[in-house]
Amino acid sequence: MKNIKIILSEKDIPRKWYNIVSDLPFILTPAINPATKKPLEKKDLEPIFPKGLIDQEVSLKKWIDIPNQVIDIYRLWRPTPLRRAKRLEKALKTNCRIYYKDESASPTGSHKTNTAVAQAFYNKKEGVRRLTTETGAGQWGAALSFACNAFSLKCRVYMVRVSFEQKPFRKSLMRIWGSEVFSSPSKLTASGREILRHDPHCRGSLGIAISEAVEEAAKNKDTKYSLGSVLNHVLLHQTVIGMEVKKQLNIVKEKPDFLIGCVGGGSNFAGFTFPFVKESLDKGKIKIIAVEPTACPTLTKGLYKYDFGDTAMLTPLIKMFTLGHRFIPPGIHAGGLRYHGCSSLISALFDKKIIQAVSFHQLEVFKAAVLFAQTEGIVPAPETAHAVKCAIDTAKRNKNKCIVFNFSGHGFLDLASYDKYMNHQLKNYAYPKSEINKALKDLIPIENSLKLS
Amino acid sequence: MKNIKIILSEKDIPRKWYNIVSDLPFILTPAINPATKKPLEKKDLEPIFPKGLIDQEVSLKKWIDIPNQVIDIYRLWRPTPLRRAKRLEKALKTNCRIYYKDESASPTGSHKTNTAVAQAFYNKKEGVRRLTTETGAGQWGAALSFACNAFSLKCRVYMVRVSFEQKPFRKSLMRIWGSEVFSSPSKLTASGREILRHDPHCRGSLGIAISEAVEEAAKNKDTKYSLGSVLNHVLLHQTVIGMEVKKQLNIVKEKPDFLIGCVGGGSNFAGFTFPFVKESLDKGKIKIIAVEPTACPTLTKGLYKYDFGDTAMLTPLIKMFTLGHRFIPPGIHAGGLRYHGCSSLISALFDKKIIQAVSFHQLEVFKAAVLFAQTEGIVPAPETAHAVKCAIDTAKRNKNKCIVFNFSGHGFLDLASYDKYMNHQLKNYAYPKSEINKALKDLIPIENSLKLS
Repeated sequence: MKNIKIILSEKDIPRKWYNIVSDLPFILTPAINPATKKPLEKKDLEPIFPKGLIDQEVSLKKWIDIPNQVIDIYRLWRPTPLRRAKRLEKALKTNCRIYYKDESASPTGSHKTNTAVAQAFYNKKEGVRRLTTETGAGQWGAALSFACNAFSLKCRVYMVRVSFEQKPFRKSLMRIWGSEVFSSPSKLTASGREILRHDPHCRGSLGIAISEAVEEAAKNKDTKYSLGSVLNHVLLHQTVIGMEVKKQLNIVKEKPDFLIGCVGGGSNFAGFTFPFVKESLDKGKIKIIAVEPTACPTLTKGLYKYDFGDTAMLTPLIKMFTLGHRFIPPGIHAGGLRYHGCSSLISALFDKKIIQAVSFHQLEVFKAAVLFAQTEGIVPAPETAHAVKCAIDTAKRNKNKCIVFNFSGHGFLDLASYDKYMNHQLKNYAYPKSEINKALKDLIPIENSLKLS
Repeated sequence: MKNIKIILSEKDIPRKWYNIVSDLPFILTPAINPATKKPLEKKDLEPIFPKGLIDQEVSLKKWIDIPNQVIDIYRLWRPTPLRRAKRLEKALKTNCRIYYKDESASPTGSHKTNTAVAQAFYNKKEGVRRLTTETGAGQWGAALSFACNAFSLKCRVYMVRVSFEQKPFRKSLMRIWGSEVFSSPSKLTASGREILRHDPHCRGSLGIAISEAVEEAAKNKDTKYSLGSVLNHVLLHQTVIGMEVKKQLNIVKEKPDFLIGCVGGGSNFAGFTFPFVKESLDKGKIKIIAVEPTACPTLTKGLYKYDFGDTAMLTPLIKMFTLGHRFIPPGIHAGGLRYHGCSSLISALFDKKIIQAVSFHQLEVFKAAVLFAQTEGIVPAPETAHAVKCAIDTAKRNKNKCIVFNFSGHGFLDLASYDKYMNHQLKNYAYPKSEINKALKDLIPIENSLKLS
């Protein structure tokens, strides 16, 4: 079993981020300012983001230089290995070749560090002193805490309550790197208090936590907001993943037939797959599959409409697949995938059928994760386990194909969830049809308001 | 900040283990069979170990081939990176160069996997169906569970009670890989029941857990025992670490001035430093420092005497630095260092002043670990943090030296300990003088019994 770890050297760390917008065969629908009902302008974002990131958000340039200070920190773990999952292949008795890009090798345990470092850098450069953010399972909160610590920025994290309770030790990591962490919904913000007034036991959601973090940043002059996924600039920073994978597949003379990633807001999926999309469009060969939980089936069951990125309707309106900004997903352990919406870039690609989407239930996902841990030795984060499940199914259904998936993060801090799975204390959540239908009704007035303007 | 990650390719995985015994300038004192009072014979070990490992335990050969089946599993994570800790150096304002060998990159999070895979292989080869073992913090139990899973062996782990309670999630890892895990002392063995009869609240120790595991293996024909440290063959398997480091230091044209590792039983320290000992003896330049907790100061306060490796006096007598086999160390969070004795090889090197030893208190160790996590991004296991503390002190006291330490494991599963440290709930344990003095008294009758024979 040779060549199972395909590694690159420090000089192979990408020096530029890849901006897929430049290569799209269609024009992206603009974000809308909900106050003016007009396309969002750069200045609308200035209260919450630094200019360097706003420029990237709207950039049409194909390649954007990665600052040296960011690369200096990337060197701590990049390039990450691409591994051939030969032991998993053997267990599946497949003649497909399965590869996984190991983003869990980052100090914080997931791909999130790639954009966290970049975002902290641009904020620091523009004199920002403090960042606020949301986090689900805590991978993003940990990554931003690490990055803020590296650039001497203060950081406050609103962590979705269900994950705050399920994953206590990602909080510990954030605290080691100097951040404050609060359970969301909290009493610290008007958005949080409003939610708690209606439902004191609310389990929280990424949409709510985003509202709290945005509200606080908008109110404080020395504070900006940082988002862990969804936005163009966040996805842009993650493209270092896919660019490295391209080089690594070249080394072993492979061309991917399938590219698979899990999708919440979409950043690991986008970073991994976007560098391959143009080739796929030109030659039409690669199947690119987004994997999501049945309990929060944004792409597979949502509508492609304008919606808010957060629950309290503080963000711009984005054209995306959405389950409605008021939808609060069931408390699955893949906390990073509990988001009502999805990146507008990924949504557009899905709408144009350039990428596909599938959804899985929690129990089948954990079963796949345990098989992966038993064969390849690494325990996947529950989010990542969605990609693992899809890769396994794809290998079972195909012959002699090259399947590559993104191993977005490890599960060392999710072992309480594995305990519950092994003790038969986890359940599947049915597709929450009535709750979603209720939340989707919000989309009609939003659409009508835009038509009126 | 270039060249901070020094990586090797798959072909650089060592093909042979290095046996330091062949290069020692003295003869090792033999282990003694406590029943016959005579030097231990190979057949005395056959009830608990497979012949392949017993041969390695007493081998005088300098190089021992690593089986292909073991290398095939090493490929999952080996070679591990050597990293230059430039961000730590900057924080310390030192002009010393600090490097660390990152053994936390193994699937189970520590160096222990190197010998676990080898031990499982030789047991499987000889038809053993089940292994028993002890574990402190759980690094070893997790590693052996992973290895047993890879070779389809059953595995039962006796985990020291204080760690069983402090580190619940290393249990979860062991269970994912199919092992049974029990808190030690347990009611499953005569040794455990005897301890509990005297002290129902006994916090446990590695010595007690070894007694339980050895007792069970000796009583069951299809079961052997597996030890995570101390013995020659275990240290042998770890020498892949130091051999890789040698190659990696050559790449950056460095010669080490200091080599630093933490010591419980001694396996990570030995694996890291033994490949350098001959050079140090010949040229007398490298300072090799073993680091231990003040609460369990085997080398710095123990006696160099014959003693049992376990509490219930089931193992052979080994000449080693020991605090007495009945000594139960305070409940420090570095559970892997809570061992009354030390490898006889390391003890002999320390006795001959070829290596040095220092000890640190728990709080200063955690403080160093947090600084490391904040600068280099990786959270050290509390055991590993002892080496971090010593490397930091060495950098502060020296100028322009090359300091290399072994980063034996990460602390993702020790974050509850970090929480306690940050909440000021951890304390230092004074050097437990009276308890040690009491335990040391056992050594006189042992010595007398040997003289009589």
